[in-house]
Amino acid sequence: MSVIYDRVALIGLGLIASSLFWAIKRGGLVGEVTGYARSAETRDTARRIGLCDRVCDSMADAVDGADLVILAVPVGVMGAVAAEIAPALKPGATVTDVGSVKRDVIDTVAPHLPDTVHFVPGHPLAGTEHSGPESGFAELFDDRWCLLVPPDGTDPAAIARLRALWEGVGSNVEEMDADHHDLVLAVTSHAPHLIAYTMVGVADDLRRVTDSEVIKYSAAGFRDFTRIAASDPTMWRDVFLTNKDATLEILGRFTEELFALQRAIRTGDGAHLHDYFTRTRAIRRGIIEAGQDTDAPDFGRVKKPS
Amino acid sequence: MSVIYDRVALIGLGLIASSLFWAIKRGGLVGEVTGYARSAETRDTARRIGLCDRVCDSMADAVDGADLVILAVPVGVMGAVAAEIAPALKPGATVTDVGSVKRDVIDTVAPHLPDTVHFVPGHPLAGTEHSGPESGFAELFDDRWCLLVPPDGTDPAAIARLRALWEGVGSNVEEMDADHHDLVLAVTSHAPHLIAYTMVGVADDLRRVTDSEVIKYSAAGFRDFTRIAASDPTMWRDVFLTNKDATLEILGRFTEELFALQRAIRTGDGAHLHDYFTRTRAIRRGIIEAGQDTDAPDFGRVKKPS
Repeated sequence: MSVIYDRVALIGLGLIASSLFWAIKRGGLVGEVTGYARSAETRDTARRIGLCDRVCDSMADAVDGADLVILAVPVGVMGAVAAEIAPALKPGATVTDVGSVKRDVIDTVAPHLPDTVHFVPGHPLAGTEHSGPESGFAELFDDRWCLLVPPDGTDPAAIARLRALWEGVGSNVEEMDADHHDLVLAVTSHAPHLIAYTMVGVADDLRRVTDSEVIKYSAAGFRDFTRIAASDPTMWRDVFLTNKDATLEILGRFTEELFALQRAIRTGDGAHLHDYFTRTRAIRRGIIEAGQDTDAPDFGRVKKPS
Repeated sequence: MSVIYDRVALIGLGLIASSLFWAIKRGGLVGEVTGYARSAETRDTARRIGLCDRVCDSMADAVDGADLVILAVPVGVMGAVAAEIAPALKPGATVTDVGSVKRDVIDTVAPHLPDTVHFVPGHPLAGTEHSGPESGFAELFDDRWCLLVPPDGTDPAAIARLRALWEGVGSNVEEMDADHHDLVLAVTSHAPHLIAYTMVGVADDLRRVTDSEVIKYSAAGFRDFTRIAASDPTMWRDVFLTNKDATLEILGRFTEELFALQRAIRTGDGAHLHDYFTRTRAIRRGIIEAGQDTDAPDFGRVKKPS
């Protein structure tokens, strides 16, 4: 594969940025990758493990001369970061991000950027419950989707080049409108995360059922929720605060539906429950057929011989 | 390992019974295992794949001469099955079950059983989202908990023998009061399952976000819910109808908590969200430390090299 950008700057060195670095290296996609993290401890860790070709002590140094700047910080600080790097951006450079919310990022980042740069917001649908500079690995984006949400009028060449980078790290790329992105993600990610956080919080609160029992017997279903609810607190706080409307709308629908099922339980309406559970089973089959999850029982956690 | 029972009868031949059979064979724990399923198709499948030493065409034949009878049918039909097998039970035999709810099983099964048999209800906390006679495998119970809830006055020797069988198939066994069991499971299993079913149903309902998009982008969190929501509809209908009070109580607590988090999102209370998400993260660590789940990112589904 040939070099797509001569120099790329990673702002923020967490799970996504560190995975991007290793995937870029795997593909030989970029001449030099610089990196910056606000915390000196993170920068030290990055230098120790060889994360980035060059770790810089200021954002301006990191973006200096970069053809592509990737904002990989929590959504809530995207605007402030954009304001800080704006004066140092090379004319003709592209700025992108990896935030889980897109309308808010566009609204807060775009006003700070000079007209001489291209802005192509993006969102790789990839991650794990781990975080930090040591959590990254080159395979994270393989066969995962990356959604680009370029505002109207964005230079097609800038979009195509960024698309090539994401494809180079293993992703399938689609373009989408920012508001539609935020609604789709509210359904497939944001509401499920809040619900998982809530269920885990409830279990923690229950005094009669002690923590140790909840943990001990978690394999009965609960532990699946705890994985999601172990995700980065800062990242998720910002997601909910910045995709407020869509998330609250989906949660409203969820509550309505939950009440209907609770009523079916209370009134003993077994037919309603059975029909509902049969319908949801079909969706799982669709996800497996679409190659978006494993068919192995229990995500392959059980030691079933093949 | 030595033979624990000369003859065991499996009533119902789904995931749990078929896994039990393979695990019993692995350990050489039983002389002969007979089996019965209501559906002729299931019995044919069982004969074809060698599930059970002998598949019987009636419950009475299956339990005839059995030292242990294991009821592995949906909770809702446990009482009817008990009534049907009662006349055929060998004096001195033990009857147990594998239902996910215990109070209701005791209330519906015990009245049918003759005084000449021991009744030791049980619940292995093990399973996958798959079901049916071909879904079983010998390793299902390895390092998983099995809870026994013997009523007061149950013969200690009968309990000890059943415990030995569960330990022989790989489980760790604990005894517990039936009502406490139902509350613990409402938290760790029943409420999480209903919530997962609900979230998947909501996603299916949303017309603006098409099914294909929900499926396509499910890796962002949603797909974890779909695994749980692919579990056997009949089994789960019965669980909710028979553990109604505890499930509704936990769902009530859940809704309360969810509303508090929705309010925090609406009012922009980031500190509340961050604190909550930090607390839930700690529970995940507890589960991993307790050996109840893998620490591999994303349940090990991502192809991270070791």
